[in-house]
Amino acid sequence: MTNIELNADLGESFGIWNMGNDSAMMDIINRANIACGFHAGDPDIMAHTIELAMKKNIAVGAHPSFQDLSGFGRRRIYDMSIQSMQNMILYQIGALPSIAQTIGHDITHIKYHGALANMASEDDTLALGLLSHLHHYDSGLKIMVMAKTALEKQSDFLKIPKIIEIFADRRYQDNGTLCPRSISNSIIHDTQEICDHVTRMLDEQAIISINGKKIPTVINSVCIHGDHRHAVKNAEKLRTNLENKGYTIKALS
Amino acid sequence: MTNIELNADLGESFGIWNMGNDSAMMDIINRANIACGFHAGDPDIMAHTIELAMKKNIAVGAHPSFQDLSGFGRRRIYDMSIQSMQNMILYQIGALPSIAQTIGHDITHIKYHGALANMASEDDTLALGLLSHLHHYDSGLKIMVMAKTALEKQSDFLKIPKIIEIFADRRYQDNGTLCPRSISNSIIHDTQEICDHVTRMLDEQAIISINGKKIPTVINSVCIHGDHRHAVKNAEKLRTNLENKGYTIKALS
Amino acid sequence: MTNIELNADLGESFGIWNMGNDSAMMDIINRANIACGFHAGDPDIMAHTIELAMKKNIAVGAHPSFQDLSGFGRRRIYDMSIQSMQNMILYQIGALPSIAQTIGHDITHIKYHGALANMASEDDTLALGLLSHLHHYDSGLKIMVMAKTALEKQSDFLKIPKIIEIFADRRYQDNGTLCPRSISNSIIHDTQEICDHVTRMLDEQAIISINGKKIPTVINSVCIHGDHRHAVKNAEKLRTNLENKGYTIKALS
Amino acid sequence: MTNIELNADLGESFGIWNMGNDSAMMDIINRANIACGFHAGDPDIMAHTIELAMKKNIAVGAHPSFQDLSGFGRRRIYDMSIQSMQNMILYQIGALPSIAQTIGHDITHIKYHGALANMASEDDTLALGLLSHLHHYDSGLKIMVMAKTALEKQSDFLKIPKIIEIFADRRYQDNGTLCPRSISNSIIHDTQEICDHVTRMLDEQAIISINGKKIPTVINSVCIHGDHRHAVKNAEKLRTNLENKGYTIKALS
Repeated sequence: MTNIELNADLGESFGIWNMGNDSAMMDIINRANIACGFHAGDPDIMAHTIELAMKKNIAVGAHPSFQDLSGFGRRRIYDMSIQSMQNMILYQIGALPSIAQTIGHDITHIKYHGALANMASEDDTLALGLLSHLHHYDSGLKIMVMAKTALEKQSDFLKIPKIIEIFADRRYQDNGTLCPRSISNSIIHDTQEICDHVTRMLDEQAIISINGKKIPTVINSVCIHGDHRHAVKNAEKLRTNLENKGYTIKALS
Repeated sequence: MTNIELNADLGESFGIWNMGNDSAMMDIINRANIACGFHAGDPDIMAHTIELAMKKNIAVGAHPSFQDLSGFGRRRIYDMSIQSMQNMILYQIGALPSIAQTIGHDITHIKYHGALANMASEDDTLALGLLSHLHHYDSGLKIMVMAKTALEKQSDFLKIPKIIEIFADRRYQDNGTLCPRSISNSIIHDTQEICDHVTRMLDEQAIISINGKKIPTVINSVCIHGDHRHAVKNAEKLRTNLENKGYTIKALS
Repeated sequence: MTNIELNADLGESFGIWNMGNDSAMMDIINRANIACGFHAGDPDIMAHTIELAMKKNIAVGAHPSFQDLSGFGRRRIYDMSIQSMQNMILYQIGALPSIAQTIGHDITHIKYHGALANMASEDDTLALGLLSHLHHYDSGLKIMVMAKTALEKQSDFLKIPKIIEIFADRRYQDNGTLCPRSISNSIIHDTQEICDHVTRMLDEQAIISINGKKIPTVINSVCIHGDHRHAVKNAEKLRTNLENKGYTIKALS
Repeated sequence: MTNIELNADLGESFGIWNMGNDSAMMDIINRANIACGFHAGDPDIMAHTIELAMKKNIAVGAHPSFQDLSGFGRRRIYDMSIQSMQNMILYQIGALPSIAQTIGHDITHIKYHGALANMASEDDTLALGLLSHLHHYDSGLKIMVMAKTALEKQSDFLKIPKIIEIFADRRYQDNGTLCPRSISNSIIHDTQEICDHVTRMLDEQAIISINGKKIPTVINSVCIHGDHRHAVKNAEKLRTNLENKGYTIKALS
């Protein structure tokens, strides 16, 4: 019996605009990464999402990003010092537990969002800079990292507890990084294909690239995207599929 | 020998734009209320201001407001529920200590800014709603309130430790509230007049209205505005003047 | 045969977040009021919406509001001068035709959004101030006004060409203004009830209040909300219903 | 007798925050590039700046940028399509004349700001894409370009009327581009050095690089920065110096 957890980026509505079905997703996943108002989310949505997570007994973490509502945090912003990026992150990862505290739920981890995550995944200096601050900030917080990235390497170096994730619906390049969204086929839309992709990576304990290359890695968590039309259906099917293959779906403790 | 403290709203720069001389003000005052990014301030400015305050041994508090950079938090925004206003406040008062923690400085108090402070000062229901949440959030945080307002009354009711302040350069109405900025004479520009206004209120332990009415009150702190041309000079002269009258200038403990 | 037009507030998506089905709505209505980036919309969405409107031969107008993405322009913001409000409006109603011009479509009218519209509908001084500037800006632009409001009265006084609208799914008070959203029953959800409400007002050429009071008025346009689940179905049914009653659905020229 | 014009980026205050002394600068320069609210400026400041410019008979242009108040438009934002960048620009260059029209002043030119200008100066594809849209938008508007950049080359290709500028206080690299702000010596602070730098480039009709390399170019305009302490003094001295050398200071017609 092998354990695996499912995580999703939630609380990504903003103001009057809705994104996904957080409540339904929380019936399927074990861990939610909650937007902190810089790429999505606002104080009310943060509160509402944490309340839901507490009711459904889901672990929650902060999902900080560049300050870019218009671009959903997916646009790379250059010319910021590492110190500025860290202040930007500290701001967000302080705001979330402040709201969570009045609700009575704990923050267990941090996961960088979008362009910020991609930049820190590729750049050892940036990864080390950001993680050093984070470690000093709260040595008990886990960092969720994509397998085989600079973020994983530097969190090992700093001995920061980590959650290694793969993406259920994204194709990988031969070097272990995600195929960029701009490439066709980078995102898997077919539910069965998503199930097969995930199961194979878990069974092999490896990233399987778009060309079939195997890159061995520990895998703790599978990220399911919650922001498209078939998200809930895909997530349900993936969970059932994994359970049928003998995996126990539970949060990494 | 009577103790009195001086406080100022600092960290009110934004991005490339500077506001006031925080460093010089911190040589004069005992307590700084630091903008949290919603009416002024940004993560870098918050970090820089807390570093300065720590170096100069100044107590710091969070100075949350409506989300209104364009209007510097001075515009009343209606049609928000008390719960939404509280989430908005929790967001800000969580962001500040998160940045402060990596610097090693503590947050000692909360002071609402601008239109938010004015609305909560006038409205017992709003004051009670906001303060109840705050008390539940952290019962050790002091709340800085204007003397004789709904905020003072409700913090007494909830037994929240408070810092009662008067404004050095603002005229008061007969009911103890500030003369609105739109009224001429509402702001005192002359340094000597500021000194006389403050000394008289401290000596009498009362608010003295624009018409000479005395409204007895405890006074713990005098707020000096740091955002105009003669701010530092006024603050220095006020401090010297108070010391010459026998007051000891120190933070309320 | 009587003519009536249908209008809707469209282009109210923002960034990655979608609102309503603008394309389907444009197959039903004659005139679209397009968000200008302050309460909803962004330059890409503005361009996309105007392209759709041009393809479907729909008249378009600017739908300016307070700068309040978080509150969708529905929160009243006080303490702004009329001149500041007008600069805020000019900014938005200049941005839209700039984008429309490269697409080749004309802007025919202005309709204030949300709290801005409500405030200007209630206050003759504000209505006169805003409309005077508008008239000076472009005397050919029509202003869309709610029947029997200060905006209608002042546009008559200034001889600004106007489009008088009623709301299909909102109940009215006895004084002719909308029942506030906070009141239950203020919004009509049942499709047949919407149809009956509109037909009766058109047949009687009067606003019919929630208590049955009739307030005679010219009616040029019926506003259909496009931002809820059944919006398109309601709009289709309303259009068919009106056509069956003998109304010709076409834009006021 | 040779003509040369002086230009400056003005209207770069925001909300309560002031930047530079626009009124004093307008007594010295011939042409102002006015921020449009995305990196600086807001509708009130835009109106106020245009009023000043009209009173002082200064030509005004739009100075659009990335939407980045926090970073003053100096941070490169990637992952935007050329079409999105153009919509972003159209929005801004429509907002400004809308405000200018009620004041009665004309917009004569466009100058991209900060990171947007730098990116378009380096990249022929981007420059061509942005300028093609601009030309289609209004073929009478001039584009202000840095000498020897992709923007200059592509505006020639498209036969867009241009204003070629050099920067008074910036050092140039041997390829004709600006030394980046991150390099020491990239900005000239000494007034006499600024005067000598400008005079030499005008006399030689060439960019003179930091290593003394001459790159021949037509020069129509000299950009003076208005956003630092000695800006006005530097500008006055530069103007006097140029007049003493026999240059006539007047706007390119």
